[in-house]
Amino acid sequence: MTKLIITMGDPCGIGPELIVKFFDELYKVEEKNLFLAVCGSKSVLENYIKNLNLDLEIIEISDELSKNMRIESGKLPLFNIDSKDNKFSIGEHTSLGGEYSIKYLDKAINLCQNKYFDGIVTCPISKDSINLAGYKFSGHTTYLANKTNTEDYAMILKGKKVVVLLNTTHLSLVDACKQVKKENILNKIKIAERAKKELGLEGTIAVAGLNPHNGENGLFGREEIEQIEPAVLEGKKIGIDVEGPIVPDSLFVKVMQGQYAISVVMYHDQGLIPMKMESFGMGVNITIGLPFIRTSVDHGTAFDIVNKGIANIGSLKEAIKTASKMVTIKKENLENFVEKEYF
Amino acid sequence: MTKLIITMGDPCGIGPELIVKFFDELYKVEEKNLFLAVCGSKSVLENYIKNLNLDLEIIEISDELSKNMRIESGKLPLFNIDSKDNKFSIGEHTSLGGEYSIKYLDKAINLCQNKYFDGIVTCPISKDSINLAGYKFSGHTTYLANKTNTEDYAMILKGKKVVVLLNTTHLSLVDACKQVKKENILNKIKIAERAKKELGLEGTIAVAGLNPHNGENGLFGREEIEQIEPAVLEGKKIGIDVEGPIVPDSLFVKVMQGQYAISVVMYHDQGLIPMKMESFGMGVNITIGLPFIRTSVDHGTAFDIVNKGIANIGSLKEAIKTASKMVTIKKENLENFVEKEYF
Repeated sequence: MTKLIITMGDPCGIGPELIVKFFDELYKVEEKNLFLAVCGSKSVLENYIKNLNLDLEIIEISDELSKNMRIESGKLPLFNIDSKDNKFSIGEHTSLGGEYSIKYLDKAINLCQNKYFDGIVTCPISKDSINLAGYKFSGHTTYLANKTNTEDYAMILKGKKVVVLLNTTHLSLVDACKQVKKENILNKIKIAERAKKELGLEGTIAVAGLNPHNGENGLFGREEIEQIEPAVLEGKKIGIDVEGPIVPDSLFVKVMQGQYAISVVMYHDQGLIPMKMESFGMGVNITIGLPFIRTSVDHGTAFDIVNKGIANIGSLKEAIKTASKMVTIKKENLENFVEKEYF
Repeated sequence: MTKLIITMGDPCGIGPELIVKFFDELYKVEEKNLFLAVCGSKSVLENYIKNLNLDLEIIEISDELSKNMRIESGKLPLFNIDSKDNKFSIGEHTSLGGEYSIKYLDKAINLCQNKYFDGIVTCPISKDSINLAGYKFSGHTTYLANKTNTEDYAMILKGKKVVVLLNTTHLSLVDACKQVKKENILNKIKIAERAKKELGLEGTIAVAGLNPHNGENGLFGREEIEQIEPAVLEGKKIGIDVEGPIVPDSLFVKVMQGQYAISVVMYHDQGLIPMKMESFGMGVNITIGLPFIRTSVDHGTAFDIVNKGIANIGSLKEAIKTASKMVTIKKENLENFVEKEYF
């Protein structure tokens, strides 16, 4: 049995709408090997159920109760964490929204660490709101890594053919360039190797260059020569099927032709631009390296369309599907993983 | 009559093969309003004609002769600039190849400056080879701008829907970030406005952000707040239909949906990755701002496939088609251009 916990994300964003729509639609499918529950606020979810006129009942659950539950049509199992004194301001950046985003997430982490669930699927949070609430927060990925004392981790974005592993995530581009270091890249190559297994992908790992035309042999930029190529060579030396640096602007043409299983990219948009261009609305964000599975939708809180009933659940579906697949692979190949682990 | 001069590019690259294939194929089409000639080396072109077994005759021409010539089936009009003493080493970076790449280009510039031709279509050169020949050369675009004392110019890459104007071209990514300045971007917005007219495009100009998620209100990177947004506001103030900064990883999804005519991007790969992903093999490189039209293929010398007979003329065709269209627009709307000019 695969058990996934879905966090509601920012209560003022589109997360709650996605969740009630998803449960309304998908729970009509019988699925004996999957159990899904939510960490969120009952008052918010109920509001959307009412507004969207859905036939969905919220069932409050506890750690213990969740142990032996199964999917049931028309029911939404919820770890209820609600605000009693204050109302959430829908569609706005608020410290209250940020505070609760973190509460849902902390509960979900706890549920996975205590083995009640196999993994977390996260709905979008607002970094602004969480920072307003007094946290120094630069994104789910880093927060999850810190909370679980994970050192070697990476963010992967998965479209149809475009699967990218980011050397850095939410850093300014100037700061991201400073992180193009041999040791970081080698580390990401190793995580990519692990990701291939955890995601069930086959083929060569590509490593992108940083500069236009790979710097043309040092004419404009030397990171390819001094950092990236040495990391790739080191990766090959320890037996990883890896190539690079690949000229960034032709890499994704090759990826679309099926040449690579996964691409290690040097900065956020080097991977996100092609991934979203290929699969907007259907992309999945995955954190590799945590002690549990974690996937996420690939979009933001979309405050501008909150409560209009038009939020698209495509990415949430894909995120849940990907997480389920990863749990299955992990359970079936557990010995295999440990044996072939680089960490 | 539209007159375009094609430079052969590096004699050791795929340029010469593209040219003979193109003339062999396209000259069978009768076209009374277009005249095309080549700046290149007869010995090299003849070699490809022989190897590919083409029925094509090279006609050596001069400035004066070119004045009243017309397209003729089976003929390739050539400004012959050949190396008598040394042989070109096909498929290699050589200073001789670099030296002649520049000779063809200089001749073509001269022909346009003296009004013998309306524009140049360039085949790929090797920056390495040209630098070996003793030039400090970072690309066609900058070289052409310097040679014609052009201050306000920009490189545009045109696919099908993706049309991008680069804030910087062949700079390391670190240096490109330093050029994200209000005055540079405003200047590029003005050139984009000019490009829309010269390319016959309609719609809004988009300006991309630099940092992931546009820096999330300054959380990681302040270029959007301090440089890009003020440039966009200034552009609007002078009457340009422009929007931005647009979050980079969603910009090209919007472009694919037809939302923008042209996108001003902050660095080379921010534009080239989506452009090549959309249109690889069929993209066109355009320099806007020169005293004459200039387009180019969007690929390199491809030394690895030289003389194998497999080079694809798709991008060269598109480059010639685009240049022809631009000459027509320029001639027909000349008064209009001057009147609405921002420079």
